[in-house]
This record gives sequence, C-alpha cells and structure tokens, in this order.
Amino acid sequence: MIYLTRRERFNAAHRMYREEWSDEKNFEVFGKCSNPNWHGHNYELFVTVCGEPDPQTGLLINLKELSRIVRERVIDRLDHKNINLEVPFMQGKIASTENLVITIWEELEAPLQERGIRLYSLKIAESENNIIEYKKE
Amino acid sequence: MIYLTRRERFNAAHRMYREEWSDEKNFEVFGKCSNPNWHGHNYELFVTVCGEPDPQTGLLINLKELSRIVRERVIDRLDHKNINLEVPFMQGKIASTENLVITIWEELEAPLQERGIRLYSLKIAESENNIIEYKKE
Amino acid sequence: MIYLTRRERFNAAHRMYREEWSDEKNFEVFGKCSNPNWHGHNYELFVTVCGEPDPQTGLLINLKELSRIVRERVIDRLDHKNINLEVPFMQGKIASTENLVITIWEELEAPLQERGIRLYSLKIAESENNIIEYKKE
Amino acid sequence: MIYLTRRERFNAAHRMYREEWSDEKNFEVFGKCSNPNWHGHNYELFVTVCGEPDPQTGLLINLKELSRIVRERVIDRLDHKNINLEVPFMQGKIASTENLVITIWEELEAPLQERGIRLYSLKIAESENNIIEYKKE
Amino acid sequence: MIYLTRRERFNAAHRMYREEWSDEKNFEVFGKCSNPNWHGHNYELFVTVCGEPDPQTGLLINLKELSRIVRERVIDRLDHKNINLEVPFMQGKIASTENLVITIWEELEAPLQERGIRLYSLKIAESENNIIEYKKE
Amino acid sequence: MIYLTRRERFNAAHRMYREEWSDEKNFEVFGKCSNPNWHGHNYELFVTVCGEPDPQTGLLINLKELSRIVRERVIDRLDHKNINLEVPFMQGKIASTENLVITIWEELEAPLQERGIRLYSLKIAESENNIIEYKKE
Repeated sequence: MIYLTRRERFNAAHRMYREEWSDEKNFEVFGKCSNPNWHGHNYELFVTVCGEPDPQTGLLINLKELSRIVRERVIDRLDHKNINLEVPFMQGKIASTENLVITIWEELEAPLQERGIRLYSLKIAESENNIIEYKKE
Repeated sequence: MIYLTRRERFNAAHRMYREEWSDEKNFEVFGKCSNPNWHGHNYELFVTVCGEPDPQTGLLINLKELSRIVRERVIDRLDHKNINLEVPFMQGKIASTENLVITIWEELEAPLQERGIRLYSLKIAESENNIIEYKKE
Repeated sequence: MIYLTRRERFNAAHRMYREEWSDEKNFEVFGKCSNPNWHGHNYELFVTVCGEPDPQTGLLINLKELSRIVRERVIDRLDHKNINLEVPFMQGKIASTENLVITIWEELEAPLQERGIRLYSLKIAESENNIIEYKKE
Repeated sequence: MIYLTRRERFNAAHRMYREEWSDEKNFEVFGKCSNPNWHGHNYELFVTVCGEPDPQTGLLINLKELSRIVRERVIDRLDHKNINLEVPFMQGKIASTENLVITIWEELEAPLQERGIRLYSLKIAESENNIIEYKKE
Repeated sequence: MIYLTRRERFNAAHRMYREEWSDEKNFEVFGKCSNPNWHGHNYELFVTVCGEPDPQTGLLINLKELSRIVRERVIDRLDHKNINLEVPFMQGKIASTENLVITIWEELEAPLQERGIRLYSLKIAESENNIIEYKKE
Repeated sequence: MIYLTRRERFNAAHRMYREEWSDEKNFEVFGKCSNPNWHGHNYELFVTVCGEPDPQTGLLINLKELSRIVRERVIDRLDHKNINLEVPFMQGKIASTENLVITIWEELEAPLQERGIRLYSLKIAESENNIIEYKKE
C-alpha cells in the first residue's frame, strides 16, 4: 500500500469559545485561546491518501488534481479568514483544531472518492508543538 | 564580536488596513490581508544582541534575563492577542510586520541597555516564506 | 479517532554501556556512544494521545494538563540531567533511546489514564537522523 | 513494539515519462515533470524497522549496520545519479517516487531480514510538500 | 533599515563541468557533481531587499509584486529545468551555485530598481548543509 | 562578494562552571547548566567563508576540502566528547558556546588561510532557540 501526503498551508484567526457560556467560563476552560478579540495561526494541513499506483503512470494519483481539490474545498475557504465567523463548514462548531480536522475530512472525502482517491488521514499542525490527526476507522 | 540570538514565539490575529481608507481601497492595497474579520499567524521573533563575553562567566549575557525581558515587554503583550486592538505599543500604527519589528525595537532597546546589553537586530518570521529584519544603523 | 501530539524537549548527557562489560567490549558494541566521559543530545519527545473530542469543548484533552503531566513526570527529571546517573526511572537500565521511550511510557500511562487520557505512541528524536517510536500493542 | 527510523539523503535527476508515449502525451500526463532535459530533487529517505530491543544492549538494531546497508544498497546507487538512466533497480520502470519507494523496499528487505531486521515502512520526501510512504501489508 | 526576505523554491537538474576539460579532469575537480547524466536539487532562493517602510502602508514593498518579479524573471525559467541546457541566463557559465546566485542578481537588480526596490542579498540553499549568499558591495 | 556556509554537526556533553567557585555559586550563576553530572546538546556548526569564485571552476572553494578541514580540526575532536574534560582546545576555558565559537575560530582560521580561504563567520546553534555567532572585526 502506497501513502501519499500533500502539505498545504493557510493562515487564519479563531477563538475558542462556547456561545452559551460566559466569557469567564470560556476563559476558565479555554484559557487565553478564548480571547474575544481573536488570535491566529499559520496552520499546516497534511492530506494523506492511499492506494496502489497506476501501472500506466507509476503514480498513485494526479498530484495537481489532489492539490486543486484541497485548495478549492478547504484552503481557499480558510486562508486569511476568521474560522468562527467566515468558514461555512465550521458554522455552529467550536473552532478547535479537532473539529476543524473532522470537518475538513467531510469536505474532502466525497470529492476525492468521486475521482477514485481514498482519503487515509488528515493532520493539522497548529504550531511546532501541537499536532492533531484524524483517521476514520 | 559575539552575536547571541534568542528565539521566542507568539500567536496573534491582525488586519492590514488604514482607517481613513474604505474597505475597497484597503483591499486594493493589502489584498486578503485586509480581511475585516482578521486573520492570524504564528510569529517567530529572533532577538540578536552583541558584545564581548564576560571573562568571569564566558557568557555574553544572562540568557534567562534576556528571555525574561523579551517575554515581559513583548511576548506577553502580543501572544494570543489582536495586534490592531489590544497591543498598546501598536496603537495608531498599521499592523504590518515592518511596523511591529520597529516598535518591538523601541520596547526592548532601553531595558536591555539598562542591563548593559546591546541590541543588534530583530527578525520576525511571519511564515516560512516571509521574514522581516530590522537593524538600527 | 483523533490523535493529538504534543512535542516537549529536553537536553541530557548519557553513555551507552553495560556495567559488566569492559570499556573495550562496550566500545566494540556501542562505538563512540560508550565514551566514559559522556556525550549528550537535544532530545525531542512527541507524546501522542487518542480518543474522541469532548462534544462540549471540541477538545480531545486539556492540552495544558497534558503538558503539565509530561513535564512533571518526564521532562523535569530528564532536562539538563545525566540519564545514567540521575534519572530515577532509568536506574539499572542501559541508557538507549529504546529503553528511554519504553520507560517514559511506564511513567506516563497511569497518570494519563487516571484523567481518562489514552496514550497512543511515544516518539523520541535524538537527532535529525535517528528517531525511535514506541506503541504498546 | 519499537520502531526505529533512520534518515538518509540523496540528490538525483529524473524525468517522468513513458517511453511508448510521445513527448506531447507525456507532457499532458506528467506536466513539467516530463521535461526531456531532466530536473532533480534532494530526496530524503526514511527507513523504519521494527521489533523488540535486545535485552543485552537495549538496542533494536546496530544503527551503524543499518546505515551501512542502506548506503550500500540504495544511497550509493542513487546519489548524484540520473534515476532513469543509471540506477540498475529502476530500469524499465517509470521514475516516479511511488515506484522508487517500492523498488527500494525490494532492495532492502532481504539483506535486512538476513540480519534479523524487519522492515516496517519506507518514506521518501521529494520536497517539503510531497511525501510518499510504502508499507507492505 | 528594514530587510525583507522572500523565500521561493525551484527544482532543477545540473552538472558541474568545464567544456574544454575531459570527463576525467572534470571528475577530478568536481567529483560526482560532474556526472554526465546530471543530478539535481531542490533549491531554496532567499531574496532580501531593504529600505524604509512606506508611511502610508507600513510596508517596505508590495510583497506580491516582489514575488511576481522573482517568479517571472527567475523561478519560471529555472523550475523543473536543466540549468546547463535550458536556462538562458546560465548559458556559457559553469552551473555552480556561486555563478547561479550572481546571475540571478543580474536578472533581478534592474527590474526591482525600476520599482524603487533595492536588492540587498541573494541566498541559495542547495541542501540543508550548503548555502551560498551574494551581496554586491 | 560570495559567502559560502557549510553546516556540520556534533553531539557533546558539557557543564557550565568556574572551578574556583563552589557548586552553589556555580548554580547561582549558571543555573541547571552547571549540573556536576553534565548535560549535553546536538550542536550545529555553520562555517561561513567568503571571497570571489574561481573563474576556472565557478566555485568559491573546494567544498570537500573545507568539510575535511572542519571535520579534522573541529568535529572529530568534539563529537561524542565531553567538552570540559576531553577537548584539547577548550582546556582551561569555561565551556560556554561563546568560548567554543571563539576557540573554533582559532582552530580554523590558520589552516583555511593556508589554502587561501577567508573565514567570515562561525555560528553555533545549541538548540532551536539559542544561537551564537562570531565574526572577527
């Protein structure tokens, strides 16, 4: 089995909070990440797909097409945006990297499947110290 | 001459815009960086000081003290903050990395000088592709 | 399933040797890593935990708490220490990164479990070229 | 189970193309990677082996021996070479990283097994954005 | 004085050799880098410009314009190319990184100057261990 | 002017202390870096030389020769060693990175000069956060 990982990047603002909680309660749970004036990150997204290489081309997939799908579905809607306010697929969700990675999976799985590409894992590094990965098992 | 560089990091939200300009004009000049809903970065700050090592200790400076000053004066006031709205030393300034690095110099120069430490350069990497450095000459 | 990885760092000295062997035999087996005068590394520790995010917070775990446990149980006892001489949980063991990663697992598993956190893997990079990972299966 | 990863590097030229196709067809499928005048990469190879540490040494394997095998079998035959023209184990194959990683597996599996070392995965980073991994399952 | 550095990347094949020398003589001087079948690299180019920020925008330059000029003049003519055979500004020159960085300076200086941008230094990392920088003084 | 930087690496143990001071005084000044049982680092050494490329070869220097000199004079005497106890050129000196970089300069300057190579700067990264550079001016 071959696993191909493509890295894409986006910069975004967000705030960790639960609407029905007070600012105090939010601060208690989320600390400085709940700052009502937002903060932000350089996010790195690692999309891993898997399968067997095409014997005609020696390639698992067309990398340009993978990159195009990831950009159209995910990066263009997140880059230089406010994750809480502006990202359609994050509406009504807490803007945690955990929720982000699960939601990006939902955005990518179907369009990749249509092209015969099997999504294996999604990883987001929100800093050099904190990395979240999602695999559907 | 010995140059010592200490790296510190902060995450923040910002928006590039000039208050007296319309959103259209701001977008024309600053592109997606002028998004009114903010975006953000993981910033890396490299503080370089210079001088001769102390013959008693073999050290240029007390690294812990340098780190403490940089954290108190700069990092604690920027980390998980909105640069436009919340950072006292950036009030009334366009939140560019160029202005940020010049302003951080003004914050750090005097307290370092009081302890006999000479600031040589400040560098901010706002992404792996964009780096701004400032030297007062 | 969500996997969260936290990176922590420590610097330490060590020596690869087996007490009942002569220095010659140790050198034969371990090479320059058996230098009786020690050598050292900047170690990077990657702690990966897994589970489902809490629907209330969108978070897998409280990252601060994870970091605190890892620091108290592991980093504070290894950082700027001699692994052979000073680290209680490495006494009587050969100071290999393999043994280190297994022993750190034993230190972390119970306190994480008490807080409902499931340890998934531990990885130590002892240099940019050599990385050891441990999973209990 | 312990997993040990060793990184080795090589620089090489290659061209993506299928001999029975015209240059136009090759360009259509492979884009600029099919340039008849070649292009090249700094490749990073990550060799992961697995098993239980030897209780006598605390080591999974002799790292020097692993590195020697990887260099003799793989790196010395790829480094500063043209993958299409000069690498014996890539003859008759499309010079994709997918095919490269599968072929390197075939080169390494037997000599490692002879020394009781079990190959777990091979990963090649051909750039900071594109990574291919192979596991035989 | 503010220094802004923009990183751009390209992959290319090359060969170190002097046409009037035999392959033996070339191999003697350049080692495996003179392989007649080429080899290649992932090159990182760091373009540093300097000046005072515009008080209207807080920016030293329009980063998009800098990136566009570097791509048009340099990256698009080097990426996925053979430096010896296909790069117009390297014709008749030995394909060393030293010559490459000097030649790129000549390509960039005038178009940047036309837009009031002062080139300060060019740096090319041809691997993680070898970096060449050029400043015109 | 062309600047060429070569990176070499070494792992070593050291202790920050001044012999005529008590352990208490040493701890007061150097903190945990004065641990009598040693600690260690992965050090990265960046050697920068400068000059004009040779018109015959397009090269500033023979990189292999530079690497050989740096390894013979510096790396082989530091790698997997105790800087305080075993490194001849550090005897009688406090094992700070500041003193290390100055002493390495003295080791390298003459043998490089003999071959017509001009040393421009030496930089040691003792961790990702702390970097010391030396230029003789």
